[in-house]
Amino acid sequence: METKKLLLDMDTGVDDALAIAYAIGCGAEIVGVTCGFGNVETHEAVRNTLDLLALLGRPEVPVSAGDAGPGGQPFQVSEACRKIHGQNGIGNVSLPHRGEPSPIPAHRFILEQCEKEGAALTLVCTGTLHNLARAVRESRETVAKAGGIVLMGGALTVEGNVTPYAEANIANDPEAAKFVFESGLPLTMVGLDVTLKQRLTHETVRGWAVRGEAGKAYAALAGYYIDHESDRGSCALHDPLAAAAAIEPGLLDTHPFAMTVLTEGEGRGRTVARSFPEECGVRNVSAALEADPGFAGKLDRVLQGLFARLDRKGGE
Amino acid sequence: METKKLLLDMDTGVDDALAIAYAIGCGAEIVGVTCGFGNVETHEAVRNTLDLLALLGRPEVPVSAGDAGPGGQPFQVSEACRKIHGQNGIGNVSLPHRGEPSPIPAHRFILEQCEKEGAALTLVCTGTLHNLARAVRESRETVAKAGGIVLMGGALTVEGNVTPYAEANIANDPEAAKFVFESGLPLTMVGLDVTLKQRLTHETVRGWAVRGEAGKAYAALAGYYIDHESDRGSCALHDPLAAAAAIEPGLLDTHPFAMTVLTEGEGRGRTVARSFPEECGVRNVSAALEADPGFAGKLDRVLQGLFARLDRKGGE
Repeated sequence: METKKLLLDMDTGVDDALAIAYAIGCGAEIVGVTCGFGNVETHEAVRNTLDLLALLGRPEVPVSAGDAGPGGQPFQVSEACRKIHGQNGIGNVSLPHRGEPSPIPAHRFILEQCEKEGAALTLVCTGTLHNLARAVRESRETVAKAGGIVLMGGALTVEGNVTPYAEANIANDPEAAKFVFESGLPLTMVGLDVTLKQRLTHETVRGWAVRGEAGKAYAALAGYYIDHESDRGSCALHDPLAAAAAIEPGLLDTHPFAMTVLTEGEGRGRTVARSFPEECGVRNVSAALEADPGFAGKLDRVLQGLFARLDRKGGE
Repeated sequence: METKKLLLDMDTGVDDALAIAYAIGCGAEIVGVTCGFGNVETHEAVRNTLDLLALLGRPEVPVSAGDAGPGGQPFQVSEACRKIHGQNGIGNVSLPHRGEPSPIPAHRFILEQCEKEGAALTLVCTGTLHNLARAVRESRETVAKAGGIVLMGGALTVEGNVTPYAEANIANDPEAAKFVFESGLPLTMVGLDVTLKQRLTHETVRGWAVRGEAGKAYAALAGYYIDHESDRGSCALHDPLAAAAAIEPGLLDTHPFAMTVLTEGEGRGRTVARSFPEECGVRNVSAALEADPGFAGKLDRVLQGLFARLDRKGGE
C-alpha cells in the first residue's frame, strides 16, 4: 500500500486515540494533528494527542490547537461524554505529559498543509467540523487542493447517538458541519450508519495488554471505553474507521448525496440529504452505507503489530 | 414486458389516480384496489377509485374499503391535504359516480388475493400501511406468499413532507408502518428520497387534455395538483413511481436495510435504518436511493397512449 499523508483533526478521546494508532500502525505519514472540542475540551485534546503521539513513538508530529468552542464560547463537555471517554478523555489512563503544541492555530495549520501537500494529503476529521469550517471560510480554494476529506460524523439512515436524530460530532457544532457539507467540497462521510457496526471487544484488547507500554495503555483506555460506551460488551470503532477509510477507501461502500445539516428544533444536528438538485448543488458527499465487516479484525492486527514493534524498540 | 398482477392499496388522491392510470396504461392486470384513509377519508378513496376505474375503462376491477382510521378512530384529513389534493381528493374534478365497492373488507381482500395469486402478485401500497398491517396480523404467512410488496412512503435520507422527519403515508399511521417494516417481509420502499425528484409539469399535462374524456379529467386533476402540491410549478410523482417500480423494478436503485419507524416525540413517523443486526433481524427493506430520471417522460407516454386508446374506444 502506498504511504498516505494524513492530517488528523480530532477531539482526542478514546476512539480518536485508536485512530491515531491505526494510522501510525498502517505506516501512514501523519503531517500533523489539529485539535478541537468535543469528547474533551480543546486543551485536553491537545494534551492527549501529544502524550499519545509520544507513547506511539511519533513525538515529532506537530499538534495544533483550534478554538475552545463554537461561536466564540467555550465548549462544555457533557457529563455523558466524560463518562464514556473518562474524565481525561482517554479512559482515565495516565500518560506522561510530553511535548508542546505548535503555536500555529489549527485552521492555519490545515491551510498550510493543504497548500504544501496538495493532492497527496487527506484530511481526516474525527471531531466537530469547526476547524475545517474555519479553514474553508478563510480559503476554500486552498482546502480544495487537498486530495480528500474524510469525516467521522452524522447519521444519515440511522438514529443519532446524542438525540434520536443527531450524532455527537455534528451535534457539537451543527453550523460548522452545515457550512462544510454545503461547501461543495468532496467529502467522505463515515457516519453511525457504518461505525456502530464495527465492534471492539474485551477479548481483543486483552491481547494488547502484553505488548509493552503502548499496548498496555491502549488495552486500558479501550477497555474503559468498552465498559462505558454502551452496555453491549463492545464498543464502536467510530474514528478508526474514518482513518482507515482515508488510507484504504475500498473499505467503504458509499453513495453520493447532496447534504445539509438541520440546525433548528429537536432535529438540530441531523444530517440529511437534499431532495432538490436546484437547492443542493453538487452531490459532493459520499456517504458510507456499508463498511468491511472485517475491519475490527484488521484493526486488531495493525495495532498488535504496532505495539509489538514499539515494545521491541523500547527494549533495545 | 410480461403482464404483472397488481393489487393496489391506496388513499385515492391525485397521485394515486395517476398511479392507477399508469398501471392500466402499462397493461398490468389489476386484481383489485383496497382503499384506506390518508389523502381523503376511506369512503372517499373508495368513491374516487370506483369512478376513476370506470373512467379508465376498467369498471370490473373490485374495490374494497378498509378501516376508517387507525386505532378504531375515524381519521381526520388535514386541511393542508384537502388543499393539495382538492376537497374531493381528485383536484375537485367531478366524475360520474359509477359502481359499488365489494363487501369484502380490505385486509381480507388482500389475504384472499395473496392466497390465490401467490408469487405472481405484487402489492403496491400508496397510502398508509394500515390495511397491509391488518392483513399481516391476521396471517403473515399468507401475505408472504405474494411475490413482492412495494410501498410509497417514508423518507430515509431526506427531510419529511409533513414534519421535518415524517412523510405523509407513514405519519398517518406510524404504528402500522412500524409493524410492517419490522415484520421481516421483503419490502421495496419508494420514499421521498426518490419521488420528490420525479416532476410532472403543466406543459406535460396540457397534452392530455385533448385526449378525450379521461385525458381531459386527468389533465384537470393533475393540473390542480401541480398548482397546490408545491410552489415549484411542478408536482412530485410519488405514487406512480411506486406502481411503476412494481411493474419494472429496474427503474430503482435500492439498498437493503433493516428498518423501523419512530413513533415517539417530534420524530414520530420517521423511517430509520437500524444500526444493530441483533435488534433488526433481516435487512428486508430495499430502500430506493435513486430512480430513473426519465420516469416523468415515460409516464407521459404511457398516459397519452392510454387516453388515446380510451378516446378511440369511446368514439366507436
